[in-house]
Amino acid sequence: MNRTKVAILGAGFITDIHIESYHRFIPEAEVVAVYARNPDKAKAFAEKYHIPQWYNDIDQLIAESGCEVVDICLPNYLHADATIRAAKAGKHIIIEKPLAVTLEEADEMIAVCRANNVKLMYAEELCFAPKYERARQLVNDGAVGDLFMLKQGEKHSGPHTDWFYDINFSGGGVIMDMGCHALGWFRWMLNNAKVTSVYATMDTVFHKERTKGEDNSVMIIEFENGVTAVAENSWAKHGGMDDRCEIYGTGGVIYADLFMGNAAVTYSREGYGYAMEKADTSKGWSFTIFEEAFNQGYPHELKHFIDCVRNDKTPLVTGEDGRAVLEIIYAAYASAGAGKKIALPFSAKVAKPIDLWLDHK
Amino acid sequence: MNRTKVAILGAGFITDIHIESYHRFIPEAEVVAVYARNPDKAKAFAEKYHIPQWYNDIDQLIAESGCEVVDICLPNYLHADATIRAAKAGKHIIIEKPLAVTLEEADEMIAVCRANNVKLMYAEELCFAPKYERARQLVNDGAVGDLFMLKQGEKHSGPHTDWFYDINFSGGGVIMDMGCHALGWFRWMLNNAKVTSVYATMDTVFHKERTKGEDNSVMIIEFENGVTAVAENSWAKHGGMDDRCEIYGTGGVIYADLFMGNAAVTYSREGYGYAMEKADTSKGWSFTIFEEAFNQGYPHELKHFIDCVRNDKTPLVTGEDGRAVLEIIYAAYASAGAGKKIALPFSAKVAKPIDLWLDHK
Amino acid sequence: MNRTKVAILGAGFITDIHIESYHRFIPEAEVVAVYARNPDKAKAFAEKYHIPQWYNDIDQLIAESGCEVVDICLPNYLHADATIRAAKAGKHIIIEKPLAVTLEEADEMIAVCRANNVKLMYAEELCFAPKYERARQLVNDGAVGDLFMLKQGEKHSGPHTDWFYDINFSGGGVIMDMGCHALGWFRWMLNNAKVTSVYATMDTVFHKERTKGEDNSVMIIEFENGVTAVAENSWAKHGGMDDRCEIYGTGGVIYADLFMGNAAVTYSREGYGYAMEKADTSKGWSFTIFEEAFNQGYPHELKHFIDCVRNDKTPLVTGEDGRAVLEIIYAAYASAGAGKKIALPFSAKVAKPIDLWLDHK
Amino acid sequence: MNRTKVAILGAGFITDIHIESYHRFIPEAEVVAVYARNPDKAKAFAEKYHIPQWYNDIDQLIAESGCEVVDICLPNYLHADATIRAAKAGKHIIIEKPLAVTLEEADEMIAVCRANNVKLMYAEELCFAPKYERARQLVNDGAVGDLFMLKQGEKHSGPHTDWFYDINFSGGGVIMDMGCHALGWFRWMLNNAKVTSVYATMDTVFHKERTKGEDNSVMIIEFENGVTAVAENSWAKHGGMDDRCEIYGTGGVIYADLFMGNAAVTYSREGYGYAMEKADTSKGWSFTIFEEAFNQGYPHELKHFIDCVRNDKTPLVTGEDGRAVLEIIYAAYASAGAGKKIALPFSAKVAKPIDLWLDHK
Repeated sequence: MNRTKVAILGAGFITDIHIESYHRFIPEAEVVAVYARNPDKAKAFAEKYHIPQWYNDIDQLIAESGCEVVDICLPNYLHADATIRAAKAGKHIIIEKPLAVTLEEADEMIAVCRANNVKLMYAEELCFAPKYERARQLVNDGAVGDLFMLKQGEKHSGPHTDWFYDINFSGGGVIMDMGCHALGWFRWMLNNAKVTSVYATMDTVFHKERTKGEDNSVMIIEFENGVTAVAENSWAKHGGMDDRCEIYGTGGVIYADLFMGNAAVTYSREGYGYAMEKADTSKGWSFTIFEEAFNQGYPHELKHFIDCVRNDKTPLVTGEDGRAVLEIIYAAYASAGAGKKIALPFSAKVAKPIDLWLDHK
Repeated sequence: MNRTKVAILGAGFITDIHIESYHRFIPEAEVVAVYARNPDKAKAFAEKYHIPQWYNDIDQLIAESGCEVVDICLPNYLHADATIRAAKAGKHIIIEKPLAVTLEEADEMIAVCRANNVKLMYAEELCFAPKYERARQLVNDGAVGDLFMLKQGEKHSGPHTDWFYDINFSGGGVIMDMGCHALGWFRWMLNNAKVTSVYATMDTVFHKERTKGEDNSVMIIEFENGVTAVAENSWAKHGGMDDRCEIYGTGGVIYADLFMGNAAVTYSREGYGYAMEKADTSKGWSFTIFEEAFNQGYPHELKHFIDCVRNDKTPLVTGEDGRAVLEIIYAAYASAGAGKKIALPFSAKVAKPIDLWLDHK
Repeated sequence: MNRTKVAILGAGFITDIHIESYHRFIPEAEVVAVYARNPDKAKAFAEKYHIPQWYNDIDQLIAESGCEVVDICLPNYLHADATIRAAKAGKHIIIEKPLAVTLEEADEMIAVCRANNVKLMYAEELCFAPKYERARQLVNDGAVGDLFMLKQGEKHSGPHTDWFYDINFSGGGVIMDMGCHALGWFRWMLNNAKVTSVYATMDTVFHKERTKGEDNSVMIIEFENGVTAVAENSWAKHGGMDDRCEIYGTGGVIYADLFMGNAAVTYSREGYGYAMEKADTSKGWSFTIFEEAFNQGYPHELKHFIDCVRNDKTPLVTGEDGRAVLEIIYAAYASAGAGKKIALPFSAKVAKPIDLWLDHK
Repeated sequence: MNRTKVAILGAGFITDIHIESYHRFIPEAEVVAVYARNPDKAKAFAEKYHIPQWYNDIDQLIAESGCEVVDICLPNYLHADATIRAAKAGKHIIIEKPLAVTLEEADEMIAVCRANNVKLMYAEELCFAPKYERARQLVNDGAVGDLFMLKQGEKHSGPHTDWFYDINFSGGGVIMDMGCHALGWFRWMLNNAKVTSVYATMDTVFHKERTKGEDNSVMIIEFENGVTAVAENSWAKHGGMDDRCEIYGTGGVIYADLFMGNAAVTYSREGYGYAMEKADTSKGWSFTIFEEAFNQGYPHELKHFIDCVRNDKTPLVTGEDGRAVLEIIYAAYASAGAGKKIALPFSAKVAKPIDLWLDHK
């Protein structure tokens, strides 16, 4: 079997998850190179995962690694630049959320990928998380009648890495980091139905010393098809990751919980190594997660993209979808700034989405 | 022991719960009379519960029954009239939610009670529900640090009684029926902190044929103390009653679920009599609730009011609290009509709260 | 109302629960006196709960307190003596589990109570715990068809009080302390069906330094009606009280969990005062119980007995039932000693039940 | 990549799961042939799964299919014969539980495999189920201190296929079908510690018309290391598959539930296609399982065996382990027949294990 050569940009938290997914579940792909700005970090990562090449220069990686796919796990503000460089070199691209910091970047990324005839997949793993996908199949089978409300939330106590808290690097707070998941998943559940309006409330309640970004938010999204969706996101929720959805239809309801709802339940007087993402402690009661990457859909997502590359298919979630999510995020920040719901389509010229809120606070 | 004499107005669903509470948990009270418009219903109810007197005329009950307390379990549109009649006759009053249909009614009810020196308790049982109260104590003990978000929702598939669906009798839909619980509970949790704004989205998704009232809604309430509260209410959620809260603080989180979170979990091939409020079926899996009135706080609530009457104390939840909830409801309907958050204090001259939405839909 | 006068013997953990039950839920009873061997403890307890009289002499309490009911919350080895003294003085008796240490004691207690024409209730609160009672009603309504298996377990990390660990005072380990609950409840569920055999395995796994009593056990009880019952009991289970049952029938199944299955779920970075019985910590995740006495059925149990006394009824659970439980316990210890199931009826002459195991270990 | 060629014997329920596992998760294996006694069934199965060859003659399959591995998913009574034929032809063997009907068969299977130098893996998927494996890692990391009790149970309402109910084909009832899982998993958790004794109770409570085999049982296994293990198994439990374990140590406890504890929770008025294994209905509330094969460990198990074959490793679970399980089963039936615990090692000459119970009932 001829394996598809993948180069990964980034060597942080999410990259570990991608590597695990490739190595355990996607033998048809081969991670041939890794990039990190810090050469020591790049080298250590490559050694840890037996990746043959490491780089601390993106252009050099693109030129020399022999990769066909670039998997971008970089901080938000580097997304557009890396995508454009890779696309111009004819590499297929899968990129972590959010697609970009600004709509202008998103538009350029999409355009350059199209012009260079490379695939651009927006890596929204919730569109592949098996419990959520099972729920979606039930909906499509009519199990809950006609949908009228969706809820999804992702919450924890805040990222470990510094750049997330610098809004110039991230473009915003928890909505940029985790709200994008809800928005991507709502559109996925609704076959990319049009959003008609967004309302959002947000605040910085826990990490005030560390960031101007919002660390707690609620968004209400109205869709043309009549469905209302509620996204809750927080960097101020303690006790580990929370990732849940609720699906309401005229014929029933589905509750799916990816973390507490899958976990073994453990009481340990002394504690143990690791309970789940962002759990502060494993002493006392804890919810012990297993197959964490698999249950969030990372292997399914990456395997799908490798299949798209190998068999020339269109990814199920594209740059356009990432762009649509970013537009909703813009509208959400604008809504919080204005105190009213914002109609879509929406656009604004800003250096970063969160300015639409901060400048009107 | 000299027992406090109570007359109950109404003989429907909620009256059963009040009677159970008096009979099992409040021996210091004695239900001496019941009123229902339909004399057969009044008589049957009195016989069923061994209540010595029944009436189909409120004035006559007030004049003749010898009651000291009137417990009002009537449809919304009769609240003000019954309260005023009882107050003028010197009776203490405990009244089911919502306090009234309009703010003008509410103001008059409060004024008349004050003028006649009778107590007026707004019967928000969630302020007494023992699991919720346990959670409130934890909050007050600092278990979760500083609150920043509260969520509460009450959902089922819709009332059994017709008048709820007639907005001229009810004043609105699920917000008038169940949203008031969330609003009353938020204020209770926050020591009646001032509300600064309300945003609401609502729709009629399931009972379109039956009512103009909203049957699904989300409200976001911002408080002066910085706390954001989210109320979800639905008459379109199947599978039985859902009554849950989530409490978020800078030092932790509390989840409390009054129905599924208390229930025995049952699988019955043939089904059985009753699983929980509004459960459509008990065949297959069901969540079997127990001590349903107690777990919702009805006995605690009524016992508290009888204690207020016997020992001349001020109720923990008053007509003013009911009026404050109604003001938020007005603002919620206005918000849904305007598509923006509405600042409080808020007032409007309308025949019924829902007009603030329907007239601007 | 003429209130029934109750004297309580004992001032420990379980007495607090009885007092709370009388004071909040049983106004028709009045606790007039408390006994503790230590006069300071008796006095402090009386003051804490506004009990008018305290004694450190049981005979004096019986003679002088004016009580009609004696509620015995003493260590196991004092049960028989206290019961017999109270019965001879014409007092009605409710006694905490287990009924006595030996079958001879049990027989004498029953005989003396009968001779003196006083009621003797065996206080098995699980026969009154509302969630379990709800489950029993479902069974009686046919919700799960014909029963074929019952399971019940009570587990925590061990009693706080020293005498439990001294088998001369307790008569045994966790089976004497908590296994009796399962056995009492099985008989209650099965309308006191005859037990045909018992098998038990047991060991001392955690408190080896502190006791010769078993701190972990499994009992399998076979009933004449074909039902098999499994009791699991432990003093070696960490993380707080566990009290669960499972009910299997040819038409369905019921799961009921009195602690984790009722609790609010809390994450507290700093911890808080109290989560549930025997929880070692409230830091991190905890299961926050509410209305703990009520949910275990103590108020219902004691109210029932007061009603029996006031209205001359036979208690639902009697000394004979306690004696039957003790007989099963004897057989369980004998089974563990013999490595085979033991047929009932069973009797043996021993100083304490656990000897039937220890002497054959 | 040179793929390992696998032939599957059997075309029933479990074969579907094996095929899904190979196709989705084990690209290094290739299913080249399937056998079923009924040629139509074999052909249909091969077509459904795009398997190139089908056979209704085992010898022919072995001789002609070119397989290196034979994966045996046949009824119990065919295990030994198929294994021996395959081994003699030099094929590596992975075999579904139980290893065989009799100890003599088991011994011969092991001997023939050894003589022919082929690998024999006993396919106990619970040794690979990811949630259980996560729990085992915690135990090994000391999260719960020293183990003293293990519990595991597997329960549903009975197999769909007829041969299970014929004890001449199956060798017994639910213990042969599902009790073997618990026994295999206990040994796995305890590093194959020696069993010192077994006690079992069993009965036929639900399928009396259909089988002489036990359909409900409890086994208590004592290990040399002092750990007590309790296995509960049932073909009489309604509402879908139940597969749970509880792990008790001196420093904590772990609860892991593979079905209800992983599922999405759904209410569907109309029902939908499939909720989980053996769920009778999906109307009303149901527990919707996802990635059912993966969560039970089938892909991990089969992938492990293919790795053993490709890289000449010894399987983690071998024929000897399957034989040890069968010995415990013998002892369990003998125990139920004798009403006492049976010491191991144990052997008996019987046509089928269940005779040890039935002949002494």
